[in-house]
Amino acid sequence: MNSPAKFIDHTLLRADATEADISTLCEEAVEYGFASVCVSPYYVSQVNSLLYGSEVAVCTVIGFPLGNNTTEVKVFETRQAVESGADEIDMVICLGAVREANFASILDDIHRVVSAADQAVVKVIIECCLFDEDVKRRLVEVVAVSGAEYVKTSTGFAASGATVEDVRLLSQVGSGRIRVKAAGGIRDWLTCQAMLAVGASRIGTSAGVVIMQQWQESEGLPCR
Amino acid sequence: MNSPAKFIDHTLLRADATEADISTLCEEAVEYGFASVCVSPYYVSQVNSLLYGSEVAVCTVIGFPLGNNTTEVKVFETRQAVESGADEIDMVICLGAVREANFASILDDIHRVVSAADQAVVKVIIECCLFDEDVKRRLVEVVAVSGAEYVKTSTGFAASGATVEDVRLLSQVGSGRIRVKAAGGIRDWLTCQAMLAVGASRIGTSAGVVIMQQWQESEGLPCR
Repeated sequence: MNSPAKFIDHTLLRADATEADISTLCEEAVEYGFASVCVSPYYVSQVNSLLYGSEVAVCTVIGFPLGNNTTEVKVFETRQAVESGADEIDMVICLGAVREANFASILDDIHRVVSAADQAVVKVIIECCLFDEDVKRRLVEVVAVSGAEYVKTSTGFAASGATVEDVRLLSQVGSGRIRVKAAGGIRDWLTCQAMLAVGASRIGTSAGVVIMQQWQESEGLPCR
Repeated sequence: MNSPAKFIDHTLLRADATEADISTLCEEAVEYGFASVCVSPYYVSQVNSLLYGSEVAVCTVIGFPLGNNTTEVKVFETRQAVESGADEIDMVICLGAVREANFASILDDIHRVVSAADQAVVKVIIECCLFDEDVKRRLVEVVAVSGAEYVKTSTGFAASGATVEDVRLLSQVGSGRIRVKAAGGIRDWLTCQAMLAVGASRIGTSAGVVIMQQWQESEGLPCR
């Protein structure tokens, strides 16, 4: 199987991640050729400098991980991130509004972040573990008309992360209109492979290096 | 013992809290006479309306719970919260900067939020469970000269919340200069009482009603 590197958002969102941790993350991303480096807004400028001239994108998270910031704050945070070099924006929707079935408000929230993101790719985190299948279907429909490029399963900070069932559901419902990013709890090549097999186009993980090493072993390649 | 109500920030920060949940929270806060209602920024306007004319303060959280937003975003979020009626601002410091011992940057981050908060009370969350005693002492010193009113132990979203040892330490180090808010994992009157006994001036908890009922029982009072 081809290398999964270009599907991986190499991610470090731990609250106490340091500049040194972020530097290592960027070096690994360049070495393995990951799709992006995904960090907190605080580190976007640093990552933008470190990745300058590489093909690795700069990804950050907005309204993260609870999603219940105001839309104005999400818009402000998005604009600043894009000005600081972010190519990709992973935003969290307002999860309380989902409980209230206020899908118009959710669409407006996403719309305004997409607009603020300008040319940057927007991924919309719907925190799958909180909702039943009907709600997840409705959320994919909302994201599909919002102008965002991806629906993303999970923040990685809730009770559980991506499941194969959720990725399959999101892919089927969004088919041809929106891509799917699987994130949260993906720590090995077997799980990564399962997510790609059911339709994920992007994998958010902090175990990118382990996954690449396991993939290389599975292919009989020498580990880097 | 006197009622602990006036020490309690009646808190609901669950990601999928709804408007109905927030309404209940405000009713309870007025009924028991809690110090404040503490909610996500998304709900500040609603809480401000619901508490209008009461003596319960409106409290919200900034850069929460990870703290690694930019200072500009924290300032923007603080200003908007205060304009929407927030009386108290619980901000999270940048925890990665603590790991790097970059205390000048932490002081600047707090300073700028305090300035944006104007007349609002600022509490500074230092996420005690991540750091050793020396670092916690240095953080209290930083908070004590920042213009903030409180140092707060925990977000409630990290590995563990307030401990009696931490509250005692923060109270001793901050003595006479800064007050202490204990938060995270305080779910009963016994624990609440222990935190107050070692110097906490405010208790952040989502179990305010249970705590009040247990206090009433301990005093032989009829439960409301």
